[in-house]
Amino acid sequence: MNINPTQMADWEIADHFEKNMLKISEIGKKLRLTEDELLPFGHYMGKIDYQSVLERHKNTKNGKYITVTSITPTPLGEGKSTTTIGLLQGLGKRGKKVAAAIRQPSGGPTMGTKGSAAGGGLSQCIPLTQYSLGFTGDINAVTNAHNLAMTALTARMQHERNYDDETLLRLSKKSRLNIDPKRINIGFVIDFCCQSLRNIIIGLGGAKDGFTMESHFDISVASEIMGILAICNDLKDMRERMGKIIVAYDKYGKPVTTRDLQVDGAMTAWLVDAIKPNIIQSLEGQPVFVHAGPFANISVGQNSIIADKVSLKLNDYHITESGFGADIGYEKMWNLKCHYSKLAPDAVVIVATVRALKSHGGAPEFVAGRPMPEEYKHENIEYVEKGTQNLLHHINIVKQSGIKPVVCINAFVADTQAEIAKIKELCEKDGVRVAVSNHWAEGGNGALELADAVIDACEDKNSFTPLYQWDMPITDRIHTIAKNVYGAGAVEIAPAAKEKIAEFEKQYDTKELGLCMVKTSLSLSDNPKLKGVPKDWTLKIRDVRYYGGAGFVVPVSGDISLMPGTGSNPAFTKIDVNTETGKVYGIF
Amino acid sequence: MNINPTQMADWEIADHFEKNMLKISEIGKKLRLTEDELLPFGHYMGKIDYQSVLERHKNTKNGKYITVTSITPTPLGEGKSTTTIGLLQGLGKRGKKVAAAIRQPSGGPTMGTKGSAAGGGLSQCIPLTQYSLGFTGDINAVTNAHNLAMTALTARMQHERNYDDETLLRLSKKSRLNIDPKRINIGFVIDFCCQSLRNIIIGLGGAKDGFTMESHFDISVASEIMGILAICNDLKDMRERMGKIIVAYDKYGKPVTTRDLQVDGAMTAWLVDAIKPNIIQSLEGQPVFVHAGPFANISVGQNSIIADKVSLKLNDYHITESGFGADIGYEKMWNLKCHYSKLAPDAVVIVATVRALKSHGGAPEFVAGRPMPEEYKHENIEYVEKGTQNLLHHINIVKQSGIKPVVCINAFVADTQAEIAKIKELCEKDGVRVAVSNHWAEGGNGALELADAVIDACEDKNSFTPLYQWDMPITDRIHTIAKNVYGAGAVEIAPAAKEKIAEFEKQYDTKELGLCMVKTSLSLSDNPKLKGVPKDWTLKIRDVRYYGGAGFVVPVSGDISLMPGTGSNPAFTKIDVNTETGKVYGIF
Repeated sequence: MNINPTQMADWEIADHFEKNMLKISEIGKKLRLTEDELLPFGHYMGKIDYQSVLERHKNTKNGKYITVTSITPTPLGEGKSTTTIGLLQGLGKRGKKVAAAIRQPSGGPTMGTKGSAAGGGLSQCIPLTQYSLGFTGDINAVTNAHNLAMTALTARMQHERNYDDETLLRLSKKSRLNIDPKRINIGFVIDFCCQSLRNIIIGLGGAKDGFTMESHFDISVASEIMGILAICNDLKDMRERMGKIIVAYDKYGKPVTTRDLQVDGAMTAWLVDAIKPNIIQSLEGQPVFVHAGPFANISVGQNSIIADKVSLKLNDYHITESGFGADIGYEKMWNLKCHYSKLAPDAVVIVATVRALKSHGGAPEFVAGRPMPEEYKHENIEYVEKGTQNLLHHINIVKQSGIKPVVCINAFVADTQAEIAKIKELCEKDGVRVAVSNHWAEGGNGALELADAVIDACEDKNSFTPLYQWDMPITDRIHTIAKNVYGAGAVEIAPAAKEKIAEFEKQYDTKELGLCMVKTSLSLSDNPKLKGVPKDWTLKIRDVRYYGGAGFVVPVSGDISLMPGTGSNPAFTKIDVNTETGKVYGIF
Repeated sequence: MNINPTQMADWEIADHFEKNMLKISEIGKKLRLTEDELLPFGHYMGKIDYQSVLERHKNTKNGKYITVTSITPTPLGEGKSTTTIGLLQGLGKRGKKVAAAIRQPSGGPTMGTKGSAAGGGLSQCIPLTQYSLGFTGDINAVTNAHNLAMTALTARMQHERNYDDETLLRLSKKSRLNIDPKRINIGFVIDFCCQSLRNIIIGLGGAKDGFTMESHFDISVASEIMGILAICNDLKDMRERMGKIIVAYDKYGKPVTTRDLQVDGAMTAWLVDAIKPNIIQSLEGQPVFVHAGPFANISVGQNSIIADKVSLKLNDYHITESGFGADIGYEKMWNLKCHYSKLAPDAVVIVATVRALKSHGGAPEFVAGRPMPEEYKHENIEYVEKGTQNLLHHINIVKQSGIKPVVCINAFVADTQAEIAKIKELCEKDGVRVAVSNHWAEGGNGALELADAVIDACEDKNSFTPLYQWDMPITDRIHTIAKNVYGAGAVEIAPAAKEKIAEFEKQYDTKELGLCMVKTSLSLSDNPKLKGVPKDWTLKIRDVRYYGGAGFVVPVSGDISLMPGTGSNPAFTKIDVNTETGKVYGIF
């Protein structure tokens, strides 16, 4: 059967390849895992005993570390995951020992608009259904650990309200925490885009029906616990962080933590399997690690440090993804993830599409689920030339980290030679190598130009350096990122946020704390409508959170919400099951 | 190492046996599964391709079908799961080809008070941690499928409020459902005991923040979808039921279903792995199936029909559990589960403890987490004799189904010879065989008397018959169960509930609908405080629900809630992780 991705949906292609995919034990053999180190989950998924691998390989030299980021994407995405898998398959065609790592997709976008982020066309990972719907259970484990903390918190508040000190001590062997119901620091989580749970009131009813207060649900992948899963180095590290999550403040302003609630041990217990990285395979049979959650706009949004460390020991090349754009995805890899892992990338790929560059160059906005405007169907060098400024901005971000990036033009059917030539011309003028990649249509064979460019880039010497040292005060760090990375003209921090920063700097040793920005992925600025390279704009920080467990200060910019919404024509309406075969169809 | 359960916690015993447990592939071999039929989940858990097994064995005769139920339990439980595993191990010691099936534990009780329901002492199933905390993901899958329906419902209500007909049709290709916000039929679910989510208001904020209305969370295992998982016969059956769940009523009183929301296909997609039954092992290496959720007081509360069907083909003896007491556990096996499965039990075991019989005989109440009153530590024939009336009542329930039960006295250290002799005397006068079983302290070797009694019982002819035919009107069925099973003097149905029943009988063919009672497990009556055999009491039905997907009419009695609460001294405070070994400790 000849596979033509222009005529088949992604799930149909996945279904075709799944008929001949390798058993997970074969993937384990490719990675030379011992039988004990590979924990199978069904015939085609597995978890890895990372401790055993890292111990066994403690003297093995790491492979080359490559990360894939992008220009400012459109709401449809520019094929970062597709390019990550395409590059993996391309390096595979070149005979390299290679693996990739991506983050587990969230149920929210999979059921909403964006699809499951498994890649697309002939560059995907499989099995698609299991990967997309629950996988080996890690996001569910994060959800459960998080909601257990909320269960503990709200039950405790009820009991403290209902009992006097003596009764409380007698019944619960606990003394009063005096939680301030107006200073609750976290909400519940659920892994769907459920805007009706953004602002809620809980604990209505009688004295045994909990504690009446405002609350909210975030999407699970935005949980601080997902951040901990992404950046922790081992179970001990995770266990310590799990006790430091601040759930509320008491009436004297002192933080109340998961440890104070005595729930941190049990929370970690829910995560003992989730900390083990997962593997599946690409359509061409290379190992794909999947671990931790997406959304660099509201969280770390990258696959875990543990997955990277394991793969770097087992492969000559290891590819990760730093999505969305370099401003928020790569910035977090550079200044947050690499700080915790003490790893440094050898090469960085920036994915661009003609489609998105046109949109940055002034072509009309397009909306998921509606027909593409005509401007995207015909050659338009002007839009492309103007839009390439956005690409050059992202190139400049990566260069600031001490690495010269490789640009990958993720080819679409409508692209013209002249449009591509223009992008190449502008990038090469900037000293950057451009590879056109056709992995969506051709798989690994379409990604050979990209693979070769990346192999060469890995041999270049680089001088990877953080953007700032962690002893820089929080406000200065925000200014540095805003100006050097986002290109903001100024920064405006709301008075309440300023106060919070001052408080953090008094209470904590901020040189131990990472900065994890929350900003829209759809613009370099904090306004998703501003395309291209916005000039003379002001980054507005409306709130600053403190994640005591992850160790992050989290400035929140613009109007971004930690609970996305479900639109009026969601993806779930197209998904169904073949009840004879058990196969799921319609996931894209 | 000599294992003495009086000196070790259950999790310590589990930990000891886990060092030498069989790989799941060995359990698969014991069941003569093909390599493709066994889907491993780690090294020690698995799922089974039930379709393949049932197809391959379509001409195989079923093994003997045994179910374990109990007297009215105390809040601590009387060891039904322990006895189920003990009997399994006892039949194993007698050289029988045998397996058991239990339901997956809910995170609520595991983190709350009751523990994980894996059995106890030397009659447990392992691996304990994975079994207790998430397992292979089935409850999470049910939770996700259920909450996806709520996400769809609340987003749809928002869009219908925000858009006029034309805009709605253009954006969503859907016409208005006109959902009545005051007649929403379901809430969200979460698998913890979180009383603060019993009564909530959702959708506060702006026009894009959902729909403002009252809502609630139930515990996940009480979801209608868990009921569907328990009683469906295959994926086709599940798929059809998934579209018939009534989420709300429209402004004209017409039901709005998951199918109307176009979410039924995607909900089923989340469950394609959950429908496959799971296997683990007993401490003595026999296969233990685990499938569907607990809580016969508020749901079906039994392991799935699919697990039973598979095991009956693969074993000479298959043991299931119908907890809690025979009034609600066995009653649902008898009149609901066996109706859907068309299976009939060959033997029924009723578990009793001297402790619980004393409590039914007038000994002071005891409370989880507090010291046991003195009356339970010393011989007291009077309490036992009086309390045995409760056991005789449960024997009578089982006899009404056409089966003479076997009574198992689950032995405790404090029991005396004279107490046990009294129970035996009273039961034997009633023509029922009594086996004293010491499986908690001795494993299978302690359960040989029970195993022999059950082997003999399976050879007895029985005349298993339902309590009522499904063409009996709903109200008559409620009366029949109340009088013949619960021993109620009268039934009082609230006026609104009466109206609902009349409506159901007009709208549906009620002879196609099962009756799934909601009643406390702690008393034969609807008042958990009434021990023994309450006389001249009135069963009060305060509400009647209709589960269109499961096909159940659900009368709700007494004050029982579908969202249990977390007490002031919960189990989660004792659970933690050894960060060197990854082992979880403190689960009981």
